[in-house]
Amino acid sequence: MSGSSIGVLFKVTTWGESHGPALGAVIEGCPPGIDLVERDIQEVLDRRRPGQLASSSSRGEEDVVSILSGVFQGKTTGTPISLVIQNTNVDSSAYEDIKDVFRPGHGDFTYFRKYGIRDYRGGGRASGRETAARVAAGAVAGRILSREGMEVVAYTKALGGVVARLEGGAIKKLTRDEIQQYRLLCPDPDAAEKMEAKLGDAKQRGDSLGGIVEIIVRGCPPGLGEPVFDKMDADLAKVLMSIGTVKGVEIGTGFGVAEMTGSQTNDPMTPDGFVSNHAGGILAGITTGEEIIIRVACKPIPSIAIPQQTVNVQGEPVEISVRGRHDVSVIPRIVPVCEAMVNIILADHVLRQKAVRG
Amino acid sequence: MSGSSIGVLFKVTTWGESHGPALGAVIEGCPPGIDLVERDIQEVLDRRRPGQLASSSSRGEEDVVSILSGVFQGKTTGTPISLVIQNTNVDSSAYEDIKDVFRPGHGDFTYFRKYGIRDYRGGGRASGRETAARVAAGAVAGRILSREGMEVVAYTKALGGVVARLEGGAIKKLTRDEIQQYRLLCPDPDAAEKMEAKLGDAKQRGDSLGGIVEIIVRGCPPGLGEPVFDKMDADLAKVLMSIGTVKGVEIGTGFGVAEMTGSQTNDPMTPDGFVSNHAGGILAGITTGEEIIIRVACKPIPSIAIPQQTVNVQGEPVEISVRGRHDVSVIPRIVPVCEAMVNIILADHVLRQKAVRG
Amino acid sequence: MSGSSIGVLFKVTTWGESHGPALGAVIEGCPPGIDLVERDIQEVLDRRRPGQLASSSSRGEEDVVSILSGVFQGKTTGTPISLVIQNTNVDSSAYEDIKDVFRPGHGDFTYFRKYGIRDYRGGGRASGRETAARVAAGAVAGRILSREGMEVVAYTKALGGVVARLEGGAIKKLTRDEIQQYRLLCPDPDAAEKMEAKLGDAKQRGDSLGGIVEIIVRGCPPGLGEPVFDKMDADLAKVLMSIGTVKGVEIGTGFGVAEMTGSQTNDPMTPDGFVSNHAGGILAGITTGEEIIIRVACKPIPSIAIPQQTVNVQGEPVEISVRGRHDVSVIPRIVPVCEAMVNIILADHVLRQKAVRG
Amino acid sequence: MSGSSIGVLFKVTTWGESHGPALGAVIEGCPPGIDLVERDIQEVLDRRRPGQLASSSSRGEEDVVSILSGVFQGKTTGTPISLVIQNTNVDSSAYEDIKDVFRPGHGDFTYFRKYGIRDYRGGGRASGRETAARVAAGAVAGRILSREGMEVVAYTKALGGVVARLEGGAIKKLTRDEIQQYRLLCPDPDAAEKMEAKLGDAKQRGDSLGGIVEIIVRGCPPGLGEPVFDKMDADLAKVLMSIGTVKGVEIGTGFGVAEMTGSQTNDPMTPDGFVSNHAGGILAGITTGEEIIIRVACKPIPSIAIPQQTVNVQGEPVEISVRGRHDVSVIPRIVPVCEAMVNIILADHVLRQKAVRG
Repeated sequence: MSGSSIGVLFKVTTWGESHGPALGAVIEGCPPGIDLVERDIQEVLDRRRPGQLASSSSRGEEDVVSILSGVFQGKTTGTPISLVIQNTNVDSSAYEDIKDVFRPGHGDFTYFRKYGIRDYRGGGRASGRETAARVAAGAVAGRILSREGMEVVAYTKALGGVVARLEGGAIKKLTRDEIQQYRLLCPDPDAAEKMEAKLGDAKQRGDSLGGIVEIIVRGCPPGLGEPVFDKMDADLAKVLMSIGTVKGVEIGTGFGVAEMTGSQTNDPMTPDGFVSNHAGGILAGITTGEEIIIRVACKPIPSIAIPQQTVNVQGEPVEISVRGRHDVSVIPRIVPVCEAMVNIILADHVLRQKAVRG
Repeated sequence: MSGSSIGVLFKVTTWGESHGPALGAVIEGCPPGIDLVERDIQEVLDRRRPGQLASSSSRGEEDVVSILSGVFQGKTTGTPISLVIQNTNVDSSAYEDIKDVFRPGHGDFTYFRKYGIRDYRGGGRASGRETAARVAAGAVAGRILSREGMEVVAYTKALGGVVARLEGGAIKKLTRDEIQQYRLLCPDPDAAEKMEAKLGDAKQRGDSLGGIVEIIVRGCPPGLGEPVFDKMDADLAKVLMSIGTVKGVEIGTGFGVAEMTGSQTNDPMTPDGFVSNHAGGILAGITTGEEIIIRVACKPIPSIAIPQQTVNVQGEPVEISVRGRHDVSVIPRIVPVCEAMVNIILADHVLRQKAVRG
Repeated sequence: MSGSSIGVLFKVTTWGESHGPALGAVIEGCPPGIDLVERDIQEVLDRRRPGQLASSSSRGEEDVVSILSGVFQGKTTGTPISLVIQNTNVDSSAYEDIKDVFRPGHGDFTYFRKYGIRDYRGGGRASGRETAARVAAGAVAGRILSREGMEVVAYTKALGGVVARLEGGAIKKLTRDEIQQYRLLCPDPDAAEKMEAKLGDAKQRGDSLGGIVEIIVRGCPPGLGEPVFDKMDADLAKVLMSIGTVKGVEIGTGFGVAEMTGSQTNDPMTPDGFVSNHAGGILAGITTGEEIIIRVACKPIPSIAIPQQTVNVQGEPVEISVRGRHDVSVIPRIVPVCEAMVNIILADHVLRQKAVRG
Repeated sequence: MSGSSIGVLFKVTTWGESHGPALGAVIEGCPPGIDLVERDIQEVLDRRRPGQLASSSSRGEEDVVSILSGVFQGKTTGTPISLVIQNTNVDSSAYEDIKDVFRPGHGDFTYFRKYGIRDYRGGGRASGRETAARVAAGAVAGRILSREGMEVVAYTKALGGVVARLEGGAIKKLTRDEIQQYRLLCPDPDAAEKMEAKLGDAKQRGDSLGGIVEIIVRGCPPGLGEPVFDKMDADLAKVLMSIGTVKGVEIGTGFGVAEMTGSQTNDPMTPDGFVSNHAGGILAGITTGEEIIIRVACKPIPSIAIPQQTVNVQGEPVEISVRGRHDVSVIPRIVPVCEAMVNIILADHVLRQKAVRG
C-alpha cells in the first residue's frame, strides 16, 4: 500500500478516481519563496486537454485547478501545497453495463484481484485522468527547475509506426513553446502528416495506436542522482514506467547499446566537454551536465470499439466493444505528462543534492 | 543522499567500495521463520563469479559471504540480516596512475562532481563489485519467493548483436539450473557459439560488447504492485535501471507496442486465462498472474584497452587505455544480478500485499 | 521538508493553513472493503468542536468533512482517501495588526526563521486548526481498529493543577461514549468542578491553563511494534509530541519509574497474564496485550490577553496582548486529537504486523 | 518490519544481536569531505564501556569499531558508512537454562509473540548491547554537528530517587569533558555520593534502580524541524523513546507545564533574545536558537537477582532469579546513548534544512 507518493524531499501524493467528485495532489517539500499562482499550473494543465485532433477524446474536459494551501500572497510558504481539480462533465451511466466485465488491456481485472473491490466507473483510479493530478504537481516542480535554469521538453518521436526524423540536433534548439506549435507535438511536419493519416485510419477501424515520446532535459547541472538505488536514471525509469501507458524506458542510446562496442558507446571527454552523449546525460546514475535524453514506449489505448474476447467477474466468456469518448492514441496528450514526471524527479534531486553539498 | 536502500517492507541497504575492506548488505523486514544458512546465499553468489569464459575477468574473486545477524539456529528471526563479503585479492596500485583521470563511460567524473571527492580505487562505490552485495541480498529474497511458489529466471537474450532464437515458449520450460548449463547462459547453442566468437574478437581488439538480458517470473500471483507510483513495472524498472550497466528496460512486448494497434496488444481473456501476454504479466501496474517478462539493455563494459580521449581533474586532455582484469561483457555475469534485483522487488510486494489483503 | 506525513503502510498526509480556503488529509494504504461514509468521520470531528464550556473558543467552527476519493458505494477501495474540510467563518483582519509581531509561545518566530516567509493569518500551518485534519484521518484509522476489536479512549487527567482521582481501574470500565458525558471529559466530577472554576478564573485574568490527557488502548493484541526504532512506544511518542501543545509523553508508570526499583517496576507474569502493568502495555517496543497507557502534558494556550513582552520582525521590542476567540485550555478539545494520533499509529502497526506474520 | 532505520537524509540502520557474531550500523547520507577515522568513533564508544562503578556490569566489553566503507584517506566520501563491532567475550551458556522462560520486564515475551521465534541469548536484538551500534553511528553524526558549531551534552539528573541540584544555569557552562570527570556523570557531587550509596544498597539486595538523564543541545540554530509530524521535538521523542530503558520524554519545562499558566510558560522575547526557555528551545516543532533541553525517564534494569514470578513458553508458572553480569542501573552508561540519539536527529535535520533554504 501507500504507493501513491513519489519523491523523498519534493514529495508528491496523488489521489482521486476518474468519476469521483475530484482528484488532486499534495506536494510536500516545495521550498518557500517561489512565485506560484493558479494560472502557472493551469497553463500547463491546459496542454493536457483534448484538442480537436483526430487522436483526441471528445469528452469536454475542462480541468480547473485550485490551490488550497501552501501558497500565501503569490509565494510558496514551504508548507504542503494542496491542488484540487473537480471532476465535471462526468457521466458514469455507460459503465453500469460493463461493471462486471474486465476490459482487455485495462486494470479492471488486476484491481479486482488486488483489492477484491473496484470503482468501475471510467477506470477509477487506473484511469488516464489521474495524470491530470500528476501534471498539476509537475507544474509546481517546473517552477523549481526554472529557478535552477533547467528545462524539460518532450515531443512525439513516433506514432503508429511513423518515426519523426530530426536532422542532427535539430530538436536541441526547439523550445517547448515552439514544439507546441507542431501538429501532434511532432517537429517533423512530414511525419506528423503521416501520423495523422494513421490516426484517422485507426479511428475508422475502431482501433488505437501506440508510439514513442522523447524527453530532453536541458540545463541540468552535473552531480544529481543518488547511487546506488536512487540513481537519476533509476528514478526516471520508475516514474515514467508508472504512467499507465508506458511499457519501456530507455536512456541515451538505450537499447541501441546492446549492439555496440565500448569504443562506440563510451563518450570521450575533452576540455570542452563530452564529444558525444550515448550516456544520455547520466553516468553511474549521476548527471553529467549534458542533456538528459529519455524515450518511452506508449502502448495503444486499450479502449477500442473492435469487439474483443474477455470474461466477466463470474469468469464467464463475454464479448466486449468499448464505446465512448476515447482517444485513438495517448499521444500527444501524454507528452506533458512525461514532462511532469521528469520535472518531479529532477526537483527532488535538486533538493537532495543541496543536502549533499549545501 | 540516502540512496542506497530499496524496498518498503523488505528493505535492502547495500554498502561498500570495490577496494575497501569489505562490502555488504543489511536486509530489514525479512519475515521470521524462514530457513536460511550461509550456503543458500553462497550458491547464488557463486553464479556471479567469473568463469573461464572469454567474457570474464581474470580477477580471482572468491566472494565468501557471512551472515552476522538476524538468523538463529538456521532460521530468520525477523530482525535485520547483515551480510558481509570481505574484499580479498585487491590490488589498488594500478589505480594510482589514473587517480586524477576520468575514465570515459565510468562514474569517475560524475562522482567527483557530485561529492567533490572520490575513492578512485577500482571504481569505488560505482564498481560492478557492488552488485555482489545485491546478489547476496537477492538470494535471501529468493527464499521468500520460493515459499510463495515463485521463481525468477534470467538468461542471455542477445550479446554483441547476436540474438538468441527460442522457439515459441521454449524458454518457459527451462529451469534456472538448466539455463546454468548453457554456455553464456544462452539457451540457443548456435547463438551462444556466435556470441563467443564475437567476444573473442572484441577481446583481441581491446574492446567490449553490450547485450540484452531477459528475465522471467513464474508463479507470480495476481494482485502484486501498488498503484499509482509503486506499480510493479515501475518498481522493476527502477531497480533494474539502478544496475550500472543498464540503459533500457521494457516489459512484455515493450518498445514493440509503439508500432502496434490496440487490437493487437490487448491480451484477450477467456475462462482459461489470458490468450496472449503482450502486457508481460502486468496491467495497470498490478500483476495479472501470467508470467512477468522483462528485458534490459546492457551497455558494453567501459573499461577498454583501446586508447580513448578524456580529461583529468585539472581539465587537461589525456589519452587513456584502461588495462587490467576486465570482462569483455557484463553478460553473462550480470544475469544473476538481474534476478537478484527482481527477487527483491517481488519479495517486497509480496509483503506489501499481505498488508492489503491480510 | 516533507514532514507532513506519518505512517509507513497506513500513511496520513495533512495539509492546510488556519485561514486558507480549506484543510485536509490524504490517507494512503487504508485496506479495501471497510465500511466508511462521511458521517462516520463527521461524528468524530464533532467531538473536537468548541462547546459551551468555559474553556472553549467562541469561533463558531462548523467543520464539515467531504470524502473526495477512495470510497465507492460506502466502502473503501484501497486507493487514497482524500478528506477536505472547508475553512468557513474565517476573519483574518485581526491578524493584519500583528503580522509583523512574533507572539510569545507561538510558532511565529520559528516559522519565520525556518522559511523566511510565513502565513501570519491565524497561525497558518502552526494553528491548532490543523488538528481537524488529524482527527478526520484518525477517524478512518479508528474503523480499522474497530475491525480488529481495538478501542482508544482518552480523558482529562489534569487541568490547571487539579488532578482527577479515579478509583483503582475505574477508568478501565468507561467507554468513550460514557466519558463523553462527563464535564471537561473528566470522569471525576469533583475534580471537573474544580477545573471549571480554575478555567473561569483564568479566563477572567486573560490567562490560560495547561493539563494532562491520559490515553488508554484496549483490546490491543500482543506483537505490535517494530524494533528497534519504530517501536510502538517510540512511534506513539513521536506522533503525540507532534501535537503543538504537547511537551511531554510518558508510557505506563512513565517518569515514576525513575524513583522505583526493578523489583517494583517489573510486571510479574502468571498463567493468567500480567499481574501489574507498569510497562503500560509495551515491552521492548512491542505490545504485550495489556492495556496501553499513555499520558501527555499539554502546555497552556499561548494566546493570552495579559500583555506580554516580545519583538517584531525588525527586532524591535513590542508589547502584545493577544485578543480574539481563543480557548482557555486545549483541554478538553485536544482529547479527540490525542485519540486520533494513537489510532493512526496503531492502524499502521496492525498493517505492518500482517506483513510480519501474514 | 523495516523498523531498524532512523532519519530521512542522515539515515542510520542498526543490526545485530547481543550474542551474535557482531553488531553494527550503516549510515547513509553522511555528507562528503568530513574528517573521520576509527579513533573518532572509538573514543565515544569507550564512554559507553562499563567502568569500575558500583552500577556497572562486570562483563568485560571491549567494543572495537571498524569502518568498512564510506571513508577514504581519512575523509567521508558521501557513500554509505558501514561500522562493525565484533561481539567478543560472549558466553551464551547461561541463557540455555532460561531459553523457554520469559524474564519479567524484558522483551522475551513480546518478541516471541511478535515473531514466533526468538534469539534468547542475552536478550538478542532487545539487548542493551544494540545501543553500541547507536553510539557508533551517533559519533559520526556528532562530526557533522561539530562542523555546524553544535554540541550535545547529557548528564545524570536523577538516580534512585536522588535528584541532582544544579545552581541556576550551572549546567550550561559544563562541557562534555568536564561532565565526564564527575562520578556517575552527575555534576552535583553530593547527589552523586548519595546515588552511589543507593546503588550499593540495591546491588546488595539484588535489585536495580531507575533515574533521569537530561540532555542539552548548545549552538543549535533556529529553523530546524519539519512540521507537522517531523517536528524537532517529535523526532527527538521518538528516537529517545526508542531506547529500551526510556519510559518518558519531556521537552523544556515538560510535565511541569500542566500546572502552569500561559503567562508563566510563554517565553517573552526581547531584542536580546528569549527571556526564559520553558519551551526548551523548540516552538511549534522548530528550534528557536535557544538551548534544547530534554529529559528522559529510565526504568530500573529488569535483570534482577530477586526471585520473580513469571511463566515459560508453555504458559506454566516459573520463578526466576536473573543472575549474571548485569548493571544495577542503566545510568550512567545510557548517557552517551542519549547523546548519540540526539546527535542523529539533529544531523538529519541540519541536512533537511539545507534542502529548505539551501
